[in-house]
Amino acid sequence: MPDILHRVGINASPEKVFEILTTIEGNRGWWDSGAMGDAKKGGTITFFKGLLDTKVTETKPNELVSWKCVKGPEEWINTEITFKLLYKKDQTFVLFSHANWKEPVEFMYHCSTKWATFLLSLKALAETGKGRPTPDEVWIYVGEEKKYL
Amino acid sequence: MPDILHRVGINASPEKVFEILTTIEGNRGWWDSGAMGDAKKGGTITFFKGLLDTKVTETKPNELVSWKCVKGPEEWINTEITFKLLYKKDQTFVLFSHANWKEPVEFMYHCSTKWATFLLSLKALAETGKGRPTPDEVWIYVGEEKKYL
Repeated sequence: MPDILHRVGINASPEKVFEILTTIEGNRGWWDSGAMGDAKKGGTITFFKGLLDTKVTETKPNELVSWKCVKGPEEWINTEITFKLLYKKDQTFVLFSHANWKEPVEFMYHCSTKWATFLLSLKALAETGKGRPTPDEVWIYVGEEKKYL
Repeated sequence: MPDILHRVGINASPEKVFEILTTIEGNRGWWDSGAMGDAKKGGTITFFKGLLDTKVTETKPNELVSWKCVKGPEEWINTEITFKLLYKKDQTFVLFSHANWKEPVEFMYHCSTKWATFLLSLKALAETGKGRPTPDEVWIYVGEEKKYL
């Protein structure tokens, strides 16, 4: 099954990036400013006004965060989102994967590009204190912003 | 074998996007400002001061452009880069794939994110006349810009 893969290198400690990924406030700062729920291991995070629920299936302090999609777009159900943190070359690399898609549908192409913009938002948040979470996100097709009006 | 997939929707005609992808001037505007060679079918484009050569293996006017990497980073040799153009919803969608990687190495994670930034550069070029080709690109890790000094 095809996976979405990405990597960014962040000028911040693994502790800081892990903190962002495992708190609601942190996830509000880079992905969805309306995120709700519990971002600790065993918790469930609700994104996009209830359109998406991810269960936090695994966390290893300053090393790994894994989520499983339990509610959301049909193509996302049971997909796994993993952030692996690797400190080297004076920065924290985030190795990201969104795995277990059943088919490489066009929506997967879209999500891959969209994830890149959000991971750059995570980098900006950790480095500068300000990311670009929804609805202040980077639009990648014409009319995308109308989804939120 | 894993593939890199992306999609952007561009406020421009398929003709315009096809023109960008099949001319050296066009490719200089979104990917590498130093691109050289021949971007028509059967030609070879040299990117990044000779570090990368792609052969133009297929073009279908306003629909498809395919390149094969014939010289470059080891992981890229014989990989295939495809731009499929799809006009719908008042825009040209570019369905991009970089296929035939042997293994999902860390460099592939990096390239996936980097491609997203360059495809957004292609979108900007077609829509506004100005992209962000190398060396004016979006940096995605700390110290990346030193590659070009």
